[in-house]
Amino acid sequence: MKNRVAASALTGLAACVLFVSCEPSELEEQAPAFDPQSVAAEVLEILDAQVEAWNKGDIEGFMAGYLRSGELRFTSGNEVRRGWRNTLERYRQTYPDRAAMGTLAFEELDVRVLSGHAAQVFGRFRLTRESDEPTGLFTLLVERHGERWLIVTDHTSS
Amino acid sequence: MKNRVAASALTGLAACVLFVSCEPSELEEQAPAFDPQSVAAEVLEILDAQVEAWNKGDIEGFMAGYLRSGELRFTSGNEVRRGWRNTLERYRQTYPDRAAMGTLAFEELDVRVLSGHAAQVFGRFRLTRESDEPTGLFTLLVERHGERWLIVTDHTSS
Repeated sequence: MKNRVAASALTGLAACVLFVSCEPSELEEQAPAFDPQSVAAEVLEILDAQVEAWNKGDIEGFMAGYLRSGELRFTSGNEVRRGWRNTLERYRQTYPDRAAMGTLAFEELDVRVLSGHAAQVFGRFRLTRESDEPTGLFTLLVERHGERWLIVTDHTSS
Repeated sequence: MKNRVAASALTGLAACVLFVSCEPSELEEQAPAFDPQSVAAEVLEILDAQVEAWNKGDIEGFMAGYLRSGELRFTSGNEVRRGWRNTLERYRQTYPDRAAMGTLAFEELDVRVLSGHAAQVFGRFRLTRESDEPTGLFTLLVERHGERWLIVTDHTSS
């Protein structure tokens, strides 16, 4: 992990030399340094908030973890939905009522911090419902947008 | 895209201030600056080489695009394989002979450059075989390891 951070810093600096005039004191103010563990903790907060919203039957609240833009990509099985609104629509169709939503849990979560503004999250979802327990795997790309971490791509399969 | 690069550079520099003593002239030698378009082109070379190997019936050659390590994660449907050897084994089981392998093509490729050392590739695979044409979607995380770009996670579904 430390090596990955160091490599990122070096590449970033070299790029910086090209794109901006480097005044370290200015840059420290503009972009605080990041620590992989705190990035991972921030990223996992999205998923905690999603579970909480889902388990209250609040699909729009669950969807707040996703980038609210046409840029969002949601892949499930052999199908791609593009955009936040289409993704919400798909969730509403697949989970039309509280019984279909069941109780959500995320398991086996694995966060790979790629930089101070990007991370990948892998995990398993499990829905506990009256008559079945659907489960599957997901790979998310999350990016920092301003102060918030948001899911920008989701690939789910079961 | 430019904003993303600039943000990466700034974050990288701030991290650098913490982790290494900054001598720009030294750092430029150690880590050349990156350009998103050339990163994307380098990343796509992996996939071109994979298609070429597959279509010669060379599964080991195809597997050269993956990180040769226990760290590799290959997700397909509801199943995860960990490690290069287990992933190779899965390909050999699923595609036991030349007829099962068919002719591979990648379509709808979309590369998202995350930094000078990480990118996400999304796309569709299609196999043209004697009696059918299986297809599916994949999301790859590729990372630079030394001089080479390698797939470190693969999530495939159909």
